[in-house]
Amino acid sequence: MKKRNVKKFKNTVVLLSGGLDSSTCAYYVRHIGKSQPNQKIFTLTFNYGQKHKKELTSARLIASEIKSSKHAIIKFNLGEWGGSALTDLNIKVPKNRNLKEKSIPITYVPARNTIFLAFALSYAEAVNASEIYIGVNALDYSGYIDCRPSFIKKFQELTKVATVAGSKETIKIKTPLIHLTKAEIVKLGEKVGVDWSKTWSCYEGGKLACGECDSCRLRLKGFKEAGVKDRIRYKVKSR
Amino acid sequence: MKKRNVKKFKNTVVLLSGGLDSSTCAYYVRHIGKSQPNQKIFTLTFNYGQKHKKELTSARLIASEIKSSKHAIIKFNLGEWGGSALTDLNIKVPKNRNLKEKSIPITYVPARNTIFLAFALSYAEAVNASEIYIGVNALDYSGYIDCRPSFIKKFQELTKVATVAGSKETIKIKTPLIHLTKAEIVKLGEKVGVDWSKTWSCYEGGKLACGECDSCRLRLKGFKEAGVKDRIRYKVKSR
Repeated sequence: MKKRNVKKFKNTVVLLSGGLDSSTCAYYVRHIGKSQPNQKIFTLTFNYGQKHKKELTSARLIASEIKSSKHAIIKFNLGEWGGSALTDLNIKVPKNRNLKEKSIPITYVPARNTIFLAFALSYAEAVNASEIYIGVNALDYSGYIDCRPSFIKKFQELTKVATVAGSKETIKIKTPLIHLTKAEIVKLGEKVGVDWSKTWSCYEGGKLACGECDSCRLRLKGFKEAGVKDRIRYKVKSR
Repeated sequence: MKKRNVKKFKNTVVLLSGGLDSSTCAYYVRHIGKSQPNQKIFTLTFNYGQKHKKELTSARLIASEIKSSKHAIIKFNLGEWGGSALTDLNIKVPKNRNLKEKSIPITYVPARNTIFLAFALSYAEAVNASEIYIGVNALDYSGYIDCRPSFIKKFQELTKVATVAGSKETIKIKTPLIHLTKAEIVKLGEKVGVDWSKTWSCYEGGKLACGECDSCRLRLKGFKEAGVKDRIRYKVKSR
């Protein structure tokens, strides 16, 4: 009878959307030496029905730059139940929103990071990874509940009872950017050699970045405050 | 600025694979009065790369029987990283395994129920549901770690920090079958009117049920012990 063996694991899974945060996180993982013959990086990207599919191309380019051993793309359609400006064609992506407003923006995708981390956990168990890196950020962000430390802490607890591998050896959820400002993320990105021209943040997914959605504005603010030149082109550079 | 409103929610999401347990769970939900004009059932099925896609037809039939308001099918491919006899064409489904054996069977799919519940949580938030029903069972089962009460308890805690809706009002994870034997599940199914001929349990997904995989054998044992006639046909009825 064939049995499931749980090997000693040491590989790394990196969630990679191709945006500013996850790309910095991915280059950081390579920078600290996780890409080695006996210790591999496995990247994971989602084609989940988002309007800005352009980020998938960026993710593929970055995965190649950081020498990912396997770049998995999981495709599913959250447009099935919609409820977000990112997946529902009937809801427009908001422009020039007040980023200090406390309400949850309509770009919030229900339980997105729970779904993303669930797949990452499955991938980690299948490829013998002991770490999952996710570039969430809870300072200069859109207020999404599933980017906060309390969410990550609880998901970390879940990994111990959700998988065989996690019950034997901790699968760590690593969030190196969670307490950084956008400017600090840009500075870290510079340090670890991110090729900004290959990244994509805009929710619209047009030829040029719109410059007006939350994602563009947080990015522009980050580069400005860090005093670094962004290498992508914008239609408008609003404040 | 359009804001996300969190309405008072009262609908129900039911995870439905079309097998013995989830079908009984679904009929039970209808039986206790969750299908009403102002209180709806939303069923959810996954086409995840399993070999036994035949269960998708069963799920659709059962969803219709219990008057599901919307039967969502989320498709993705866990064969991307494999690691299970259910999704990996290179691994055979084991026959006549010793069900008392403590090791994890090769049919275990890494983090499957974490992924399933993550989607259910997203669905629940999008359709204003306050309950998610899942037919997991921790007595006559294959030993999968993510069917146990400790996993459900931890996922329940996660719902409070993972979604906006869940942070305002608890989204309950309901597991009516978790402490029942297979025979007790069959008896409950009889009581709530399950049409067994429409269900499908076999991991092989052939024309007739194989009768030798874990899923067939647990089902056969349940019907036998309950003294109820199963309404599907088997190739072999092994013990």
